[in-house]
Amino acid sequence: MVPDESSAGVKTMDRLERVYLDRNLKRSLQAQLADQMKAMIQAGKLRANQRLPSTRSMAEQLRVSRNTVVAAYESLYGEGYLQAKERSSFIVGSATQAFRSRPQQAAAGRAQVSTPLQPVAPKPFRPAQPDVNLFPLKIWNRHRTRVLRRESSLLQYQARFSIGLDELRLNVAGYLRDSRGVRCSWDQIAITGGSQQALFLLGHLLVDRDHSAYMEDPGYPGARRSWEAARATVVPVPVDHEGIQLPLPEAPDASLIYVTPSHQFPLGTCMSLARRLALLDVARQRSLWIIEDDYDAEFRYSSAPQPSLQGLDEHQRVIYMGSFSKTLFPGLRLGFIVLPPELVEPFTRLKMVADDQGPLIDQATLAAFLDSGAFYAHLRRCRRVYSERQQFFVELIRRTGLPLEFPITGRGMNLAGRLMDGRDDQALSERLDGAGLDIPALSGYGTQAKPRGLLFGLTAFDETAIAAGVRDLVRGFR
Amino acid sequence: MVPDESSAGVKTMDRLERVYLDRNLKRSLQAQLADQMKAMIQAGKLRANQRLPSTRSMAEQLRVSRNTVVAAYESLYGEGYLQAKERSSFIVGSATQAFRSRPQQAAAGRAQVSTPLQPVAPKPFRPAQPDVNLFPLKIWNRHRTRVLRRESSLLQYQARFSIGLDELRLNVAGYLRDSRGVRCSWDQIAITGGSQQALFLLGHLLVDRDHSAYMEDPGYPGARRSWEAARATVVPVPVDHEGIQLPLPEAPDASLIYVTPSHQFPLGTCMSLARRLALLDVARQRSLWIIEDDYDAEFRYSSAPQPSLQGLDEHQRVIYMGSFSKTLFPGLRLGFIVLPPELVEPFTRLKMVADDQGPLIDQATLAAFLDSGAFYAHLRRCRRVYSERQQFFVELIRRTGLPLEFPITGRGMNLAGRLMDGRDDQALSERLDGAGLDIPALSGYGTQAKPRGLLFGLTAFDETAIAAGVRDLVRGFR
Repeated sequence: MVPDESSAGVKTMDRLERVYLDRNLKRSLQAQLADQMKAMIQAGKLRANQRLPSTRSMAEQLRVSRNTVVAAYESLYGEGYLQAKERSSFIVGSATQAFRSRPQQAAAGRAQVSTPLQPVAPKPFRPAQPDVNLFPLKIWNRHRTRVLRRESSLLQYQARFSIGLDELRLNVAGYLRDSRGVRCSWDQIAITGGSQQALFLLGHLLVDRDHSAYMEDPGYPGARRSWEAARATVVPVPVDHEGIQLPLPEAPDASLIYVTPSHQFPLGTCMSLARRLALLDVARQRSLWIIEDDYDAEFRYSSAPQPSLQGLDEHQRVIYMGSFSKTLFPGLRLGFIVLPPELVEPFTRLKMVADDQGPLIDQATLAAFLDSGAFYAHLRRCRRVYSERQQFFVELIRRTGLPLEFPITGRGMNLAGRLMDGRDDQALSERLDGAGLDIPALSGYGTQAKPRGLLFGLTAFDETAIAAGVRDLVRGFR
Repeated sequence: MVPDESSAGVKTMDRLERVYLDRNLKRSLQAQLADQMKAMIQAGKLRANQRLPSTRSMAEQLRVSRNTVVAAYESLYGEGYLQAKERSSFIVGSATQAFRSRPQQAAAGRAQVSTPLQPVAPKPFRPAQPDVNLFPLKIWNRHRTRVLRRESSLLQYQARFSIGLDELRLNVAGYLRDSRGVRCSWDQIAITGGSQQALFLLGHLLVDRDHSAYMEDPGYPGARRSWEAARATVVPVPVDHEGIQLPLPEAPDASLIYVTPSHQFPLGTCMSLARRLALLDVARQRSLWIIEDDYDAEFRYSSAPQPSLQGLDEHQRVIYMGSFSKTLFPGLRLGFIVLPPELVEPFTRLKMVADDQGPLIDQATLAAFLDSGAFYAHLRRCRRVYSERQQFFVELIRRTGLPLEFPITGRGMNLAGRLMDGRDDQALSERLDGAGLDIPALSGYGTQAKPRGLLFGLTAFDETAIAAGVRDLVRGFR
């Protein structure tokens, strides 16, 4: 380390010696740089008030991106090792600051800067994660290249496609009619940024702080948070072996009811036909909107999926929704809604305010992917693989003798396992987290209902990972 | 056309003869098919109650995608030429229905099905459109391929990146510090689905139906709609040659003030330093949030851009926002916000409810694009080209002698032209629309202020298109 002392009093270094970054290490370059600088400060090799090389010259010296250096400096700044001078210039902090362990406030009134993170793969047995390694990314990319070559206007603003490219809406309508018994015309389809955006916007459109929203209990937290974000009151409704229980609790100001009829989240129940018809009847009489979230209906292994509730509805009260996050890959962020005709125009106006339009290149690529049949081939492959994984897992668990029972198998991405020994599932889930597993407690999905159990997602993990996960599980149960 | 009359009474055709689709025509295949079927029905060659071939067999016969057929059938259904039978089967409508011109209601209680549209390029002189042909799509795609190869976890759910990939947030922070004098740490950056999502979510977070939002008048409609969607009262504030006027009108329940200091939308004024300081003072005293929308600050041609208002703020009252829609391409849908530290956590929670996370592959690609320097090279190129286009346009208009004056030039994507002859700008804008031009009236952006003029966007049009546009403009003015 050679402090540049050419101009007396100003201690600027133009380079830091003895820094060596290794690109083969798992630890990021910025973390390596921060580690080494911290060691130098602690060892007194970098002294208080010395001005560090600029991020630019440091980046050139180390042949890394400037952001790597910025991130390293910032994390040291956040920990109090450095002080900020004029814009993006740093000096080594005074000794008192530098050697105190991680002060919460680094500079006056400024919270600690966080450490940047990298994307990660899910840990076993995180629910609702598809196996992205099964996804035919090359085929997808070929379609993307082709649509971009054909249509450079996809790069432009296209305010008319606020609720989705018409080409994609047509293909989604065709898919839903054929595969899910949904009765709709293509112009009732809205494409959203994943199903979470659909829920959030429906909450904004249909409920307000004067309203209530009925929800299955236990139920999907992403939906509950959407009604809460709209300041509505959430009214939990118990679930039995036929689905959401009727009659509904008293709530005269209710405007919607959220259900997962094909495969109740998280318990896995399929709503009976009698219950479906009764629910449609209630909705019609009370002018309630039914939101049917068909989040993983494609994954039936032992029988054909039950057609949608929407397909039974004669009075346009059902809003059907789903997502390509589970059938393709979650990073795509494309979901869809089938809107009753009277909601198409208000939803379109809201979507324009919410984000103008979604990313059109992905939408055009998906349209081509659906059109080519690649989507259906991929679905068939996933169904086969996921079915095998579920069977493999259930069989392994049976052999372990763990006090877990799976009342509903043969479908879905997740399996709800009941704890047969009455132990606290939250405490267990936390302990399993310590063992490197990501298995939520069933009771965490309820507000009044507190079923004791664990929710296992099996789709993202191959047999080796499942076997290892089950070993960790056995250890965690002890 | 050979009706299949093998089973008596059921008139099902298994194919339609004499349909010929030409892929070289500008008219889409589905429109060609619909046109030809309509002609057959009108000519009596397709008779009432005949059942049409299934969409699948029709698609096979014509060697087109099934969706093309579905779209054609649906548009005929929407116009009343066809009647729907069981799921996705259609018969030719009875004569009375078929020959009435475009009934509004095709089937009982069902609105007309719309005709699918294709993406289009903007017409001259639509404001705020970058020239997507300047965008280095090949370089972008190379980065995309590389990041996908490196990090397949980008395909997964990554709930931790709800407000953006950390890698991108780092690079955006570096860019804003260097180019816009924004003072922030990377963990104050939130990536959004274009700046419209930023506005919508800020509205949701900061105002409610008990609150008011101050806005420049005239001002940006996308912002106004966001405060309205949050049910807040919008309080218009006049704009003078120094920017938004002070003191602000009475509104004790105001919680935010929306401004465009670098280049007022739509007038183009740059807020003076004195006004900036006074505004910051008001915000601090009244605990108002200032939303600084820096939508096209990168496009300064004759001088360096004014640093951001955020950079002057000593009290963390400014929320800075911008977008890559103008500097890269709008179809990307990536914007950003620099949040004051106390808003980071509430905004993150809201963003998770709003859409989980944005599309990560694009975010990782953008991070690499920024890191490589390609972004800055592209900006320099755009600046040069856009500057030339603006000069070319102003000079052309001067020569035409039209009663248009441009008080502010030398920056921005748009030019506000004042009408010097006092004519009604709304009527003029409508007439120009008839002449194939897309030039909004300035008065349309105001609620109380009604400046008479036109807003020209010049960036998306090369000199040939500008010259042709000016010729159409001259004709439209007559």
